[in-house]
Amino acid sequence: MAAAGSDLDDLVTRARDGSARAVAQLISLVEDGSPRVRDLAAALAPHTGHAVVVGLTGSPGVGKSTTTSALVSALRADDRRVGVLAVDPSSPFSGGALLGDRVRMSEHATDPGVFIRSMATRGHLGGLAAAAPQALRVLDAAGCDVVLVETVGVGQSEVEVVALADTTVVLLAPGMGDGIQAAKAGVLEIADVFCVNKADREGADATVRELQNAMSMARRESGPGWRTPVVRTVASAGQGVDELMAAVDAHRAWMVEHGRGDEGRRRRARAEIEAIALADLRAQLRAVSGSAALDALAGEVAGGELDPFAAADRLREAAVDDG
Amino acid sequence: MAAAGSDLDDLVTRARDGSARAVAQLISLVEDGSPRVRDLAAALAPHTGHAVVVGLTGSPGVGKSTTTSALVSALRADDRRVGVLAVDPSSPFSGGALLGDRVRMSEHATDPGVFIRSMATRGHLGGLAAAAPQALRVLDAAGCDVVLVETVGVGQSEVEVVALADTTVVLLAPGMGDGIQAAKAGVLEIADVFCVNKADREGADATVRELQNAMSMARRESGPGWRTPVVRTVASAGQGVDELMAAVDAHRAWMVEHGRGDEGRRRRARAEIEAIALADLRAQLRAVSGSAALDALAGEVAGGELDPFAAADRLREAAVDDG
Repeated sequence: MAAAGSDLDDLVTRARDGSARAVAQLISLVEDGSPRVRDLAAALAPHTGHAVVVGLTGSPGVGKSTTTSALVSALRADDRRVGVLAVDPSSPFSGGALLGDRVRMSEHATDPGVFIRSMATRGHLGGLAAAAPQALRVLDAAGCDVVLVETVGVGQSEVEVVALADTTVVLLAPGMGDGIQAAKAGVLEIADVFCVNKADREGADATVRELQNAMSMARRESGPGWRTPVVRTVASAGQGVDELMAAVDAHRAWMVEHGRGDEGRRRRARAEIEAIALADLRAQLRAVSGSAALDALAGEVAGGELDPFAAADRLREAAVDDG
Repeated sequence: MAAAGSDLDDLVTRARDGSARAVAQLISLVEDGSPRVRDLAAALAPHTGHAVVVGLTGSPGVGKSTTTSALVSALRADDRRVGVLAVDPSSPFSGGALLGDRVRMSEHATDPGVFIRSMATRGHLGGLAAAAPQALRVLDAAGCDVVLVETVGVGQSEVEVVALADTTVVLLAPGMGDGIQAAKAGVLEIADVFCVNKADREGADATVRELQNAMSMARRESGPGWRTPVVRTVASAGQGVDELMAAVDAHRAWMVEHGRGDEGRRRRARAEIEAIALADLRAQLRAVSGSAALDALAGEVAGGELDPFAAADRLREAAVDDG
């Protein structure tokens, strides 16, 4: 898959012409942590800045993939070019999304206006924080109007999807946890749009009501601003999907209107630069000290012979001495 | 709350004598990222090595807090001293667990054989990866036989709980996602014990069966070893809790029997040393380059004038020049 020599410029040109194959190859380069990602980043930089990134997150089982697929249909009906980046940070060991997602997406597989890509998070060069913005840049350069980033909540991945997206949609489903659980999961602060999917199920009204109550309390604290809407969908039947898309567009318009249109892009850039710089430092640390040295230090700490701060100092000193 | 001068040795002595107040003050020092954590780590190191750490993780709504509370009761009935560390990595913005957990734990609040502590993950010095092992060390030194670490899945936090625990219990509930979702969430690889809570609900049999099927397939690939049991509980009614505790103890015994008794402790130490070393490097990076410099670089990257790798190089160069 690796591109040799001047193939890189050629790949970028073909991706910009809309070749799905070229896009896939470029994202593979990013995902594989190719040494040529640096050249690629430089080649892509001037062609980016158009795509809007919409993050979708929520616990397993809320119907993220189905909702994403329904949004793709809605965007295509509106003649917008769509990229989908399905990030699965929940499987660090097996390292990848299951076939299921791709199967559910298969209705869009032959649409030349849709690029779909699954990404694992365990990666090179700072993991998701570094690789996903690169992949987004590829999709941006390829002419996508909107890129949907689907990621599993809850936890760290939610922070990451916020760092990636211009607009963040948090999905919930009835009966998967009450209002307290939602607040506990920290989703109130990160959602630009709430989507209660599977809204034909029992408990949907209660879920919507609890969200609205929790938000009206949060609003009282934080003052005026964007009012996070709660949209009901039955994504599997296409119900409410246009309303969801309208809410996403409304948030985008609100941000632009309030002079905050490039916040998402800057946030992505900041996270990415830090992730790359930190990954370089980490590589330096690991390469110099070696995992055998770390294991020995860990053994001393585990045995109570050394405290972890002293061990960390020794690890860094070793890096500096040899570096 | 900060301890001055020789108070630190005094606090450690009082914590070892079983003072809940001293334990709380010591964990606060860790959580606040006090500069004295280094002295504290050195003071605690010789007194540790006894406690077994049991991690409990699962999606919001599966009943982690209720199960944890029921396990505390079971352990107390067995006359074991218990620490509870409720880690809530899902609320990085609000920074802490809600009152709910503590309310549910309140039956144990007056038991001198139980220490309960909630921790936020956004923290100093490497966040959870660095602070939680320190807090565990405090609870270990205070004479806990078992420390239960409760953390919200799914995602990064599951990896972290594995890094912390000797034995990891993954909780599921019927109807919150099928077998594919469980596999997707990467829990098969991290669970030492599966607990299907709310087992009186419809779908419990199906959840257990799907887990067992998925595991028997996984086993065929990975060969013989510990056979992850699936325990059914109705934690709110105390049902199955003794069986859950027995499964946890059996895993611990199996690890010791197979010469792997100190794996968890070494893993915690390794993660902690790396987290501290990396946090120090990160602090160096941030302090030298300053966030204004990073913002300027992010602006250039966002505007397509600079690629992120070049920006990361500049950030690191600034750190080296001034460092």
